[in-house]
Amino acid sequence: MSTEDGASEPTFVEEGREFKRDTNYIPTRITEDGRDGYPVEPGRYRLIVARACPWANRAIIVRRLLGLEDVLSMGICGPVHDKRSWTFDLDPGGVDPVLKIPRLQDAYFARDPEYPRGITVPAMVEIATGKVVTNDYPQITLDFSTQWKKYHREGAPDLYPEPLRNEIDEVAEYVFRDVNNGVYRCGFAGSQQAYDEAYDTLFARLDWLTERLARQRFLVGDTITEADVRLFTTLARFDPVYHGHFKCNRSKLSEMPVLWDYARDLFQTPGFGDTIDFTQIKAHYYIVHSEINPSGIVPKGPELTHWLEPHGREQLGGRPFGDGTPPHPPIRSEVVPAEHWATR
Amino acid sequence: MSTEDGASEPTFVEEGREFKRDTNYIPTRITEDGRDGYPVEPGRYRLIVARACPWANRAIIVRRLLGLEDVLSMGICGPVHDKRSWTFDLDPGGVDPVLKIPRLQDAYFARDPEYPRGITVPAMVEIATGKVVTNDYPQITLDFSTQWKKYHREGAPDLYPEPLRNEIDEVAEYVFRDVNNGVYRCGFAGSQQAYDEAYDTLFARLDWLTERLARQRFLVGDTITEADVRLFTTLARFDPVYHGHFKCNRSKLSEMPVLWDYARDLFQTPGFGDTIDFTQIKAHYYIVHSEINPSGIVPKGPELTHWLEPHGREQLGGRPFGDGTPPHPPIRSEVVPAEHWATR
Repeated sequence: MSTEDGASEPTFVEEGREFKRDTNYIPTRITEDGRDGYPVEPGRYRLIVARACPWANRAIIVRRLLGLEDVLSMGICGPVHDKRSWTFDLDPGGVDPVLKIPRLQDAYFARDPEYPRGITVPAMVEIATGKVVTNDYPQITLDFSTQWKKYHREGAPDLYPEPLRNEIDEVAEYVFRDVNNGVYRCGFAGSQQAYDEAYDTLFARLDWLTERLARQRFLVGDTITEADVRLFTTLARFDPVYHGHFKCNRSKLSEMPVLWDYARDLFQTPGFGDTIDFTQIKAHYYIVHSEINPSGIVPKGPELTHWLEPHGREQLGGRPFGDGTPPHPPIRSEVVPAEHWATR
Repeated sequence: MSTEDGASEPTFVEEGREFKRDTNYIPTRITEDGRDGYPVEPGRYRLIVARACPWANRAIIVRRLLGLEDVLSMGICGPVHDKRSWTFDLDPGGVDPVLKIPRLQDAYFARDPEYPRGITVPAMVEIATGKVVTNDYPQITLDFSTQWKKYHREGAPDLYPEPLRNEIDEVAEYVFRDVNNGVYRCGFAGSQQAYDEAYDTLFARLDWLTERLARQRFLVGDTITEADVRLFTTLARFDPVYHGHFKCNRSKLSEMPVLWDYARDLFQTPGFGDTIDFTQIKAHYYIVHSEINPSGIVPKGPELTHWLEPHGREQLGGRPFGDGTPPHPPIRSEVVPAEHWATR
């Protein structure tokens, strides 16, 4: 998801206003029973993402953790989209090799020639028709967990276990409102007051999370869940982007010991850090948001190598994959180049 | 000094160009022998500064350290000047109580009605004529040390001792080029390449300074000198402004232990920290540089209270004031409000 970058919203910061995210997505679901006309089926759909986007990053991680690579291919848009749409500029000829389109908007307009909202990632596209089925990112990852179960790899973790769903939903709601979207509310605030309020809310929530995570290794239960995935994608972008670009600067993530250890624990867990492309993340925010960074210059810092330092969180117990196992390394075409983890 | 903020340079970032500072100032000097027509004389001149400006900050510190308050009064411009000039908006009625002018440019135009350059601080103004005598900031502080000697307080330190002048000049030149002005070269770079080069140069120099200051408490000799004053004013602004606003973000000052201890040592030395107004510093850069920060929103962070934590630099020996003594506390009208040291 990345409405704020969408083709339909050229203005990010509305003067005097607080940032309001458009949370209307195409609600069609891909389900086991195919109730919306789109049944789960190997090879039928393609997940379109951008590594830069935190909302798409969730889907990349969950697909990896559950081992859906063989049944659900992935197309990757470049970090720097144009005014109209995310584009496939990383692909040879600038065209997605499966969908054969240069712009993600082509798949949105195939679904609805008058599609009025932002062209967002992640999007699930039906390959045969070239139509976007859904871009409803919070539902997409939950459906990966609950509807695609038949195709999960052996040893896949249960990221949305029945007995914990209420707690996961509750935590995820706080995390969305105050953290995932909270950093955007800081960065896109149209007034000092709106910014100040968003900043206070963000760091109050991070303090709350610190307290929770000082006692337990993962956000809910003693294994990784959907809640951890959702928090992680924002934490991974905190120091490279949100701290400076969005003015979330009470402190760096690396200065908040509990959250920093927690983030490194996840980063070093197969399926998390191996989906992160710091180079694309920085390029996206600093180049696309010309209203915030008119020069388009991308900072060289911060130094990022310390993501691989020991985190010590094993002491808190917990078993990342529960009774399951870590995923295999990424398939070759989806490996993030090692130099994208170092300082640019 | 603050040419980049001057009335004559509306554009900060020239696309595709590196930042070049206009280093032409009014070269008239106020000297003991009055060779330029302006002899040192108590009560004859007024030093005009802005607390926000690092170049003016030098003069504020040196005046304090040498105890020139009684012979040289000080006018303080607000942090947020308009397109044309620094202004006396902090004073009752928006007028400097001594010079009776609302804008510093009035004193520049009194000297030269066609004055073509930026209206910069610090400026030394002759009170009777209302004319700027000089704005040549590197010379102003050296002249405080060498030409105003007769009026130094008892116990004033020698900030520019004869036997060390070559070394002070040499270090100060590196510090000016790569650090004082280096942060501006990062922030006002008009191309990615110009920024990248400035960033590398800045942090290479900070590494060089780290090595030097790991072995000795002060930059030159074993007491505070002009060299320390010049480095300090940039370090004090590093985390609140340069790290984010100017993209000097390899790390924060607080993540560079030697420089951070050194900066706190100076901050806690009378005459240094008591001249720093973090609120005005942040307001100045984030509001005035609308080309870099179009929203004009001022970050709430970073947390700044740790400037008062122990620094442990006494272990390296050195005597801050040599055979002299620390200055008295600031005179009442020049005290920075305590809340301007906390997070805004």
